[in-house]
Amino acid sequence: MAVVQFTVVPLGTGDTSLSGYIAEVERELDKMGIKHTLTPMGTVLEGSLDEVWQAIRAVHELPFNQGAKRVMTLINIDDRRDKAGSAEQKLASVRRKMGD
Amino acid sequence: MAVVQFTVVPLGTGDTSLSGYIAEVERELDKMGIKHTLTPMGTVLEGSLDEVWQAIRAVHELPFNQGAKRVMTLINIDDRRDKAGSAEQKLASVRRKMGD
Amino acid sequence: MAVVQFTVVPLGTGDTSLSGYIAEVERELDKMGIKHTLTPMGTVLEGSLDEVWQAIRAVHELPFNQGAKRVMTLINIDDRRDKAGSAEQKLASVRRKMGD
Amino acid sequence: MAVVQFTVVPLGTGDTSLSGYIAEVERELDKMGIKHTLTPMGTVLEGSLDEVWQAIRAVHELPFNQGAKRVMTLINIDDRRDKAGSAEQKLASVRRKMGD
Repeated sequence: MAVVQFTVVPLGTGDTSLSGYIAEVERELDKMGIKHTLTPMGTVLEGSLDEVWQAIRAVHELPFNQGAKRVMTLINIDDRRDKAGSAEQKLASVRRKMGD
Repeated sequence: MAVVQFTVVPLGTGDTSLSGYIAEVERELDKMGIKHTLTPMGTVLEGSLDEVWQAIRAVHELPFNQGAKRVMTLINIDDRRDKAGSAEQKLASVRRKMGD
Repeated sequence: MAVVQFTVVPLGTGDTSLSGYIAEVERELDKMGIKHTLTPMGTVLEGSLDEVWQAIRAVHELPFNQGAKRVMTLINIDDRRDKAGSAEQKLASVRRKMGD
Repeated sequence: MAVVQFTVVPLGTGDTSLSGYIAEVERELDKMGIKHTLTPMGTVLEGSLDEVWQAIRAVHELPFNQGAKRVMTLINIDDRRDKAGSAEQKLASVRRKMGD
């Protein structure tokens, strides 16, 4: 299981607002049933690498369906294999150490 | 005012856990008083570009003080000037459009 | 055809040098036959999204085979569909405009 | 001395081509005299963290001068302090290990 952040950025759309595109991405992730959390600069997914790619591959396509002709998608994969780690556990671990 | 995500990644430390480094970063940001939110894959800052850089420049240094010899820091600056926009407003805008 | 940069970063390895891991990545890409160019901060691939993911998925695994327990892989996909565009064409286009 | 890649991405410009913006960035870096190399997905700078930020801060502003209302700037700082390392040395080290 990896924790993965991605950001889908449509380019050259003529509109500075991206929220309509991101809303579409979130709706699609809801349908897919993959665990996902929206943050101010991207969406955090949790799953196997194949599940995560399948989701990102699908939502990367959405802005093209809405008329965009160029899409930049940024992905950051954090894949730790010495112990299980969810997004929530990562945050809890930092908070615990801040409390020390 | 820009919304900026950054991730400080110490390399070659011999320990797969990074939470001790990130806890130190969060403590320093608390002291600085800059608006910041921890997410599973980084920290989101809000402020002017100069304030944001001053903060990132300072916390990029912290893992070196803890013994790291190489640090990779990833930064994503979202600077929108046609209207004021906070991290919270970005999230609210997506949610509003999801409700449509 | 997309132009995609990725960077595979093994974490917690105890060695600040990453070149041994990157050499292994480059060797594997050579074998695969996908078009790839090493830059100082990552590797640029050109191909369909599926080809590119297949390559990144494979090389992301390599540092684990060399003993790493955590790997962060950064990916930036530039997918333009209004006209064909290779990495070389992108560079040529900037140079042409610099000459104006 | 750090090796730093950055990518300046104007959003909502109504034009899928970004090369006119990047040409302007490269011209400005030429004037500044900081060491810089254009790659297909960004520009690699070499210098102290302060020099590098001064350069990125300046070129991040250029698309606004050309009419953009929103600019996303991606930065990846690789700061290694156990030995001096240039962008060229990083590439040479990988190639040497590939030859082994």
